[in-house]
Amino acid sequence: MKNQITNAISDFFFEYETPRQVLVRNRRVGVVCRIIQLGVLAYIIGWVFIYEKGYQSTDIAVGSVFTKMKGVGYSSMNGTERIWDVADYVFPSQGDASFVVMTNYIITEGQKMGKCPELHGKHNCSSSADCEGGSFKRQMTGECVNETKTCQVLAWCPVEDDLVIPDPPMLMSAENYTLFIKNSVTFPLFGVSRSNLVEGIDAGYISKCLYHPESAPLCPIFRLGDIVKQSGFNFETIATVGGAIGIVVDWTCNFDVAVTHCKPKYTFHGLYGNPAETDKARASVGYNFRYAKHYMEDKIQKRTLLKVFGIRFDIIVQSLARKFDIIPTLTAIGSGVGIFGVATVVCDLVLLYLLPKRAFYKNMKFKYTDTHTQK
Amino acid sequence: MKNQITNAISDFFFEYETPRQVLVRNRRVGVVCRIIQLGVLAYIIGWVFIYEKGYQSTDIAVGSVFTKMKGVGYSSMNGTERIWDVADYVFPSQGDASFVVMTNYIITEGQKMGKCPELHGKHNCSSSADCEGGSFKRQMTGECVNETKTCQVLAWCPVEDDLVIPDPPMLMSAENYTLFIKNSVTFPLFGVSRSNLVEGIDAGYISKCLYHPESAPLCPIFRLGDIVKQSGFNFETIATVGGAIGIVVDWTCNFDVAVTHCKPKYTFHGLYGNPAETDKARASVGYNFRYAKHYMEDKIQKRTLLKVFGIRFDIIVQSLARKFDIIPTLTAIGSGVGIFGVATVVCDLVLLYLLPKRAFYKNMKFKYTDTHTQK
Amino acid sequence: MKNQITNAISDFFFEYETPRQVLVRNRRVGVVCRIIQLGVLAYIIGWVFIYEKGYQSTDIAVGSVFTKMKGVGYSSMNGTERIWDVADYVFPSQGDASFVVMTNYIITEGQKMGKCPELHGKHNCSSSADCEGGSFKRQMTGECVNETKTCQVLAWCPVEDDLVIPDPPMLMSAENYTLFIKNSVTFPLFGVSRSNLVEGIDAGYISKCLYHPESAPLCPIFRLGDIVKQSGFNFETIATVGGAIGIVVDWTCNFDVAVTHCKPKYTFHGLYGNPAETDKARASVGYNFRYAKHYMEDKIQKRTLLKVFGIRFDIIVQSLARKFDIIPTLTAIGSGVGIFGVATVVCDLVLLYLLPKRAFYKNMKFKYTDTHTQK
Repeated sequence: MKNQITNAISDFFFEYETPRQVLVRNRRVGVVCRIIQLGVLAYIIGWVFIYEKGYQSTDIAVGSVFTKMKGVGYSSMNGTERIWDVADYVFPSQGDASFVVMTNYIITEGQKMGKCPELHGKHNCSSSADCEGGSFKRQMTGECVNETKTCQVLAWCPVEDDLVIPDPPMLMSAENYTLFIKNSVTFPLFGVSRSNLVEGIDAGYISKCLYHPESAPLCPIFRLGDIVKQSGFNFETIATVGGAIGIVVDWTCNFDVAVTHCKPKYTFHGLYGNPAETDKARASVGYNFRYAKHYMEDKIQKRTLLKVFGIRFDIIVQSLARKFDIIPTLTAIGSGVGIFGVATVVCDLVLLYLLPKRAFYKNMKFKYTDTHTQK
Repeated sequence: MKNQITNAISDFFFEYETPRQVLVRNRRVGVVCRIIQLGVLAYIIGWVFIYEKGYQSTDIAVGSVFTKMKGVGYSSMNGTERIWDVADYVFPSQGDASFVVMTNYIITEGQKMGKCPELHGKHNCSSSADCEGGSFKRQMTGECVNETKTCQVLAWCPVEDDLVIPDPPMLMSAENYTLFIKNSVTFPLFGVSRSNLVEGIDAGYISKCLYHPESAPLCPIFRLGDIVKQSGFNFETIATVGGAIGIVVDWTCNFDVAVTHCKPKYTFHGLYGNPAETDKARASVGYNFRYAKHYMEDKIQKRTLLKVFGIRFDIIVQSLARKFDIIPTLTAIGSGVGIFGVATVVCDLVLLYLLPKRAFYKNMKFKYTDTHTQK
Repeated sequence: MKNQITNAISDFFFEYETPRQVLVRNRRVGVVCRIIQLGVLAYIIGWVFIYEKGYQSTDIAVGSVFTKMKGVGYSSMNGTERIWDVADYVFPSQGDASFVVMTNYIITEGQKMGKCPELHGKHNCSSSADCEGGSFKRQMTGECVNETKTCQVLAWCPVEDDLVIPDPPMLMSAENYTLFIKNSVTFPLFGVSRSNLVEGIDAGYISKCLYHPESAPLCPIFRLGDIVKQSGFNFETIATVGGAIGIVVDWTCNFDVAVTHCKPKYTFHGLYGNPAETDKARASVGYNFRYAKHYMEDKIQKRTLLKVFGIRFDIIVQSLARKFDIIPTLTAIGSGVGIFGVATVVCDLVLLYLLPKRAFYKNMKFKYTDTHTQK
């Protein structure tokens, strides 16, 4: 018994099985099959390996973004000059990846809680009967104000008049503001961290550079007017009614070469409200929100309401890193061999069913285990 | 020599190798093997290709979200009526993907920097000896205030009394607020951009629609009460103590069909503080934060402190797009051929080790290179 | 005709083809080939399946994060004691995944719109001629102020003096603040939701625990000093000039075992401004932003400007879940069979081109279809 097992093992190790093959000497079949096989090989090496880099595994990054605006705005309304600095025109102030730069506004000063008539054009009435029933949009008192012919509401009074949007925008000077972006990304699978302040982008360079797609593609300081222009918007239009722009930081990296070649690429595109687009965009042009500054005056709580029109910037980090990995390499090779097998099957079909001498080749290829008549 | 190489190349091109095979005429083996082979084929075509769409590559989107609330709240406390509009109850105001709608609050007005006794129940004392040692939570002065029998602290005075949460909540009217979501996504691999304002969702439709899971699944305007209900919460409970709700915008798209079929699907679920869940959730029920409005009164800096209870909404964009790709297709075919090879190995094992005529088949299949005794 | 088809089908089902093989009894070839084949097998089973878990598909999570700070800061400037609570030192206040804790500040009180001389050192002048031309950074009036020898600007006056950063920082007590993180993640492909308040982390535990890498790795409450230390920073340095720290919540989960084993892991690292790094980091040390509190005094709008230096925390959720899936399993097996085929090809090359008896083996393996001379 033990002897038998030893024999079986030694047989297993000292034997080697290789398939017996028919070597068909036929020009037509030979050329067709070799071309199919070379085609498969070319596909595997050329397409899967070289073009699609099938020997690499991929990873996307986790990252964080910090932004900082610079520049001072200037507005002049009814002879009152006003300066707008970063603390006034950026929302929120702490430098998030998504923020709004105010470019236009409707200001309603000195609002306090009380009862006052609605804006002309909204909730018109001829008598108190028209003002019954509280809408969820406004808290009506049920009275009709004679002077304005509109319903009286309980609200922050006086109510905001936003029927006319200032045009040209109050803060055209926003065009010259600059935006500084700091972005760090980590590819967890490959254990690589990168910052958009890559090699060569030092404090000296940053202090004087300005992003330009060709001449300074790595400078992380952007002029607002340039961003808007490259997104396909007209600055005055977007500054008047507001809009949203995505700044895509694209990290497409190949870690089989030096990590210093992994550099960000900046692109800009409108997110919503691009007037050049079709209906769906027009459905929702502009960007605005309301913001209040509260204060006490003569023991009464008051607020200054700002309807802010502005450009909303979303810094979107997009990443795809690739690196050599043994698993996809061998999977590609292994399935390539499988495709080779398909090529052989195709050639066999030609050989056994299409050639004039097919009966001869069939006989060569197959050996039959019984004495049935050969078809 | 040159002749030899030419010969070798012409041989290579004009020859074709195909494996010699034994055609076993045996019902049992034949049926078993054909069934195994058809099973493998059915798996590859049916499961990998049709069900799992193995011929497609996948991509996830980068996107941006903008939100806008509408509606006016109304509260009445000690006879004082108050209106809460968007600028008052949304934090932050600029329409982020993650924001809080205030539904309840504890207001502490007129706080100023000074020394005052702690709230009853915290840091009780009978003499100054009990108040020694500064805790990092409160800055104690080391004195015990006789009237309240609590330690004196250096703080914004008077200290906030948050022992009792108002119930019912101050702003039950929040149920009728509406939320408008704008979401645009880009699939970088496929170069496709989509917005949740899809074809047919134009300005006219948006102005009058309201989201409903069946009758208006694409309307991007949501009533807060509906969202809370579909998340499985009771509105009054969540409005009183606060809570967090995730609004998932699901982009599961197949770009082998027209891109207009790629539409968002909205679902709602509680993120934390679902009282129906187990211990771990109960560990951390509710959602609140403190917020201060600063002002000057008689040259002294004062603040109004709000402890805000609210519903925090997180718009979570989830995406998975698929499109035909030659690489996964051929990988699937290639490895399918490999699995076919496994089927052949299984059949061979049956043929050579289990059948009664196994010795005969073994002899047919194998040719031996030496004169050892045949087992 | 019908008979023929029936015949063909019955032939197809009752026949079975298996390749004929040469069983080479040769120690050298046998051992070499078996070792190659066992190596391939070991690679497929050991590396692809066991080490790289090639039988699993992967998924990344979507999630949401909520944070809450606790602790009170204390500063003393010119004899004025001041308390800083959460509503004062956290930006933004509502508990976002990305927030700033103020640790140092330069305060400029009582600013109002007006004309005043620039800070000494900026825009020095000897006469009005030096002040011509409005820069976009400052709105100059074109006058030179004699007393300070700097240009006059239209700005919030008096202008901020940020030449000297307070050192030691105003709020060193920030070291003892605590941060509470709530994080919930959902793996959409596997339909699994998890919260960082895992089994065993209940209200009782949270009320008294503090994160420690070894003794309390699951406690979601972190001391700021500990976070800064584990990120490799010196607290006093980062508190003075500001900095950014990433708190990575790592969800690396295997759903083939019980879902309760899926637990978060917290790590901390500096994002920007790590002074220990190379040039690119030094290019951009520190973190600060400007923040204004507006108020009315004697009918004039004024503001208190804060230049906030602080630690910015980014909670970064990193996730990778794995679960058994039939597709990658069979792809791995299928391509493994393909690699096996490559091993056979290598052995055949040895057999047919390197062995002394190669002519003999060639003759055994191949059958020729014509009468050309055998090479």
